[in-house]
Amino acid sequence: MCELLGMSANVPTDIRFSFAGLARRGGETGPHADGWGITFYEGRGQRSFHEPEPSARSELAKLLRNAAIKSRIVIAHVRKANRGRVSLENTHPFTRELWGRHWTFAHNGQLRGVKKLPLGAFAPVGTTDSEYAFCWMLGRLQARFRRLPPAATLDRAIAALCAELHGLGVFNMLLSDSRTLYAHCGKRLCYLTRKAPFGTATLIDEDWHVDFAQETTEQDVVTVIATKALTRDENWIDLERGDILTLRDGATHLIRMRASAC
Amino acid sequence: MCELLGMSANVPTDIRFSFAGLARRGGETGPHADGWGITFYEGRGQRSFHEPEPSARSELAKLLRNAAIKSRIVIAHVRKANRGRVSLENTHPFTRELWGRHWTFAHNGQLRGVKKLPLGAFAPVGTTDSEYAFCWMLGRLQARFRRLPPAATLDRAIAALCAELHGLGVFNMLLSDSRTLYAHCGKRLCYLTRKAPFGTATLIDEDWHVDFAQETTEQDVVTVIATKALTRDENWIDLERGDILTLRDGATHLIRMRASAC
Repeated sequence: MCELLGMSANVPTDIRFSFAGLARRGGETGPHADGWGITFYEGRGQRSFHEPEPSARSELAKLLRNAAIKSRIVIAHVRKANRGRVSLENTHPFTRELWGRHWTFAHNGQLRGVKKLPLGAFAPVGTTDSEYAFCWMLGRLQARFRRLPPAATLDRAIAALCAELHGLGVFNMLLSDSRTLYAHCGKRLCYLTRKAPFGTATLIDEDWHVDFAQETTEQDVVTVIATKALTRDENWIDLERGDILTLRDGATHLIRMRASAC
Repeated sequence: MCELLGMSANVPTDIRFSFAGLARRGGETGPHADGWGITFYEGRGQRSFHEPEPSARSELAKLLRNAAIKSRIVIAHVRKANRGRVSLENTHPFTRELWGRHWTFAHNGQLRGVKKLPLGAFAPVGTTDSEYAFCWMLGRLQARFRRLPPAATLDRAIAALCAELHGLGVFNMLLSDSRTLYAHCGKRLCYLTRKAPFGTATLIDEDWHVDFAQETTEQDVVTVIATKALTRDENWIDLERGDILTLRDGATHLIRMRASAC
């Protein structure tokens, strides 16, 4: 399995604190030592960093801990390979362009028979179920909408595609089009929103304590979503199986697909 | 304008020596301080690093100088912006997926009226002429070939698209599909092939001297292509305007489109 980390904020925010916790799970406090990656959106642009090696021992991950890249949407992943060998092309997050936007996708879980789904114009480069599922989703969106639809329409379309994949196995997923961060809970995902009045937090995976009141303004809203809670002293909210959370500017909206999925 | 650097090799090779020279031209020995990027192919996978800041003063560029990432195809770029503001989405190289392969593109020059060319399914995220031209090329290839054609067929198709863009202005370009590195000379590009018996080389832009005989085996073949020579003591070969050089496993093949283009 793998672990996911996502962030949505209404102001450019650095994710070093949360990423530090996740990165240690990549081979030190967790077994996810088969690669790691992180994508930062900055406006319409994005930059991604990938290594098919453990994040806990990575010089690049260390540099990212020290360089305060500020972003409003982040997707990160540490990998424990099940399908697809350990290699750069199988390292999440995956990215593609659709409608002049960069799309980014990371997944944790397994999807039985996903490779029987017919693809459109997007094709996987590597051999993971995850990248295949991502390509299938984008192909379906491209076939249905000639250009970027209104946000609410897109939200519903993505929710429906997630529900289809949810039927194939475990589909914990983060996806973004640079405007919205979509999260689907197949089995395990939790989140929390930090806003005024800000408190303090301590990482579970290392001795790092932050007083967010010192780092933020009163208007800041930041939501962090992860496979497992990253801090020991905050109230993380568990999603239910089948839940889709859309995150825009740090604000969350829950789509509960159907009771039977829980 | 900008400067380009590409490499093709028959064994995974680190490009730190050449990249060190290029990176200094990004704001120190050259004026290309508006961003830099580099893409390393590793098999079918690729990783890219981008910053909309000067490479000469970049911590990330310094890390890449010290981390020996080994690759058989590399494309790098330092930017002096003319069209398109200084931002992450306008920072080369650009990447897209087509036929299950990662394509990478970097450009130096200006193309009059390129944005009047009709696009297919690939759309630019940023506002540069360069990314637009890249999307146009991939759209044309996708429309013509349902799947990856044989190398010789693809070479001819890419050469024809380059010739069209060459007619719009200055089109110095590097492009790769992870198998071949394509170079088009619009105005200025030069290259050299290093193979046995290996000699020594000294960078123009900093005091770094390498004895390649110590770093290689007799079978290694490495071709480096750049806007301007990077070393002071090797014989760089100038391409002519309109020339296309295809590079596979370090070996070069020149396509001279037509005498009138020279």
